Amino acid sequence: MELNNYIASIPGFPKEGIIFRDITPILASPKAMRHVTRKLADFIEDQDANLVLAPEARGFFFGLPAAVEADVAFAPVRKPGKLPREVIQESYDLEYGTDTLQMHADAIKPGDRVVIVDDLLATGGTVEAIRKMAEKQGAEVVGAAFVVELDDLHGRDRLGDMPVLSLVHYEGE
Amino acid sequence: MELNNYIASIPGFPKEGIIFRDITPILASPKAMRHVTRKLADFIEDQDANLVLAPEARGFFFGLPAAVEADVAFAPVRKPGKLPREVIQESYDLEYGTDTLQMHADAIKPGDRVVIVDDLLATGGTVEAIRKMAEKQGAEVVGAAFVVELDDLHGRDRLGDMPVLSLVHYEGE
Repeated sequence: MELNNYIASIPGFPKEGIIFRDITPILASPKAMRHVTRKLADFIEDQDANLVLAPEARGFFFGLPAAVEADVAFAPVRKPGKLPREVIQESYDLEYGTDTLQMHADAIKPGDRVVIVDDLLATGGTVEAIRKMAEKQGAEVVGAAFVVELDDLHGRDRLGDMPVLSLVHYEGE
Repeated sequence: MELNNYIASIPGFPKEGIIFRDITPILASPKAMRHVTRKLADFIEDQDANLVLAPEARGFFFGLPAAVEADVAFAPVRKPGKLPREVIQESYDLEYGTDTLQMHADAIKPGDRVVIVDDLLATGGTVEAIRKMAEKQGAEVVGAAFVVELDDLHGRDRLGDMPVLSLVHYEGE
């Protein structure tokens, strides 16, 4: 399947100079969704993971179906104030300021083998914050999987030597 | 399956006097997810729908897997500023102030038969806003499906005579 036929490229969103890679056409196609879900699930199974973590909101589109397909648990990583039970959290730097991510403390335990799933790998800041949370809980991040990777932003370098799967690659901004 | 064993009840979140019904334990169980997905997909198929709409972010957990299972298209309904292409939008009243939802204009077309999926039916304001957007585009909302319904808030009354499926019911706040 030519998955890049299901990704719309929008110049100037959210600001001048950026080309936004919009994955919503994948969501509109059950066939494309099944293709992506199977690829991500194969990766999760290959890493012998038992837990998928994905950040809100676009990570949910791909992380949860892949976790169910691979028959492993899923836990959402959210912005502050969204999760009702005891949380752990991690802040990370943005271009201007910082952002914070949270997850339920009881969603992850020592020894868990975690795969992080998101729609897009850019600079890798989100993935790094999730990895820190997981490791603080005594879990191991055994891989990260993305629908789209923006090669020129070198997010992969920030992820160290963990296995990384990206289904579509783009060069240039 | 006793689905309410997979729903955590959190008194006092997000504020005093509210019992929050937390569906994250369903996400942690592939078995519970498969159960919910099959029930929602059966409903989508029974309504002969060709499109599922779900609001961010918890609606995504259930609406997208159910759409794929029923082999129909999915489109996300989002807060302003998240969708990169031309949008349509609708505002609705909250307890204090208003909120606005958007969707891509090209995600829905005249004649579409839409099922709206969300994690929880409370007062029905979100569903009503999505219905207005769909009807302005010439589509018909042929049903709404929820994992949880808070019966005492009578959201169902606001949805008129459309078929409504809820998998778990709670009475009282």
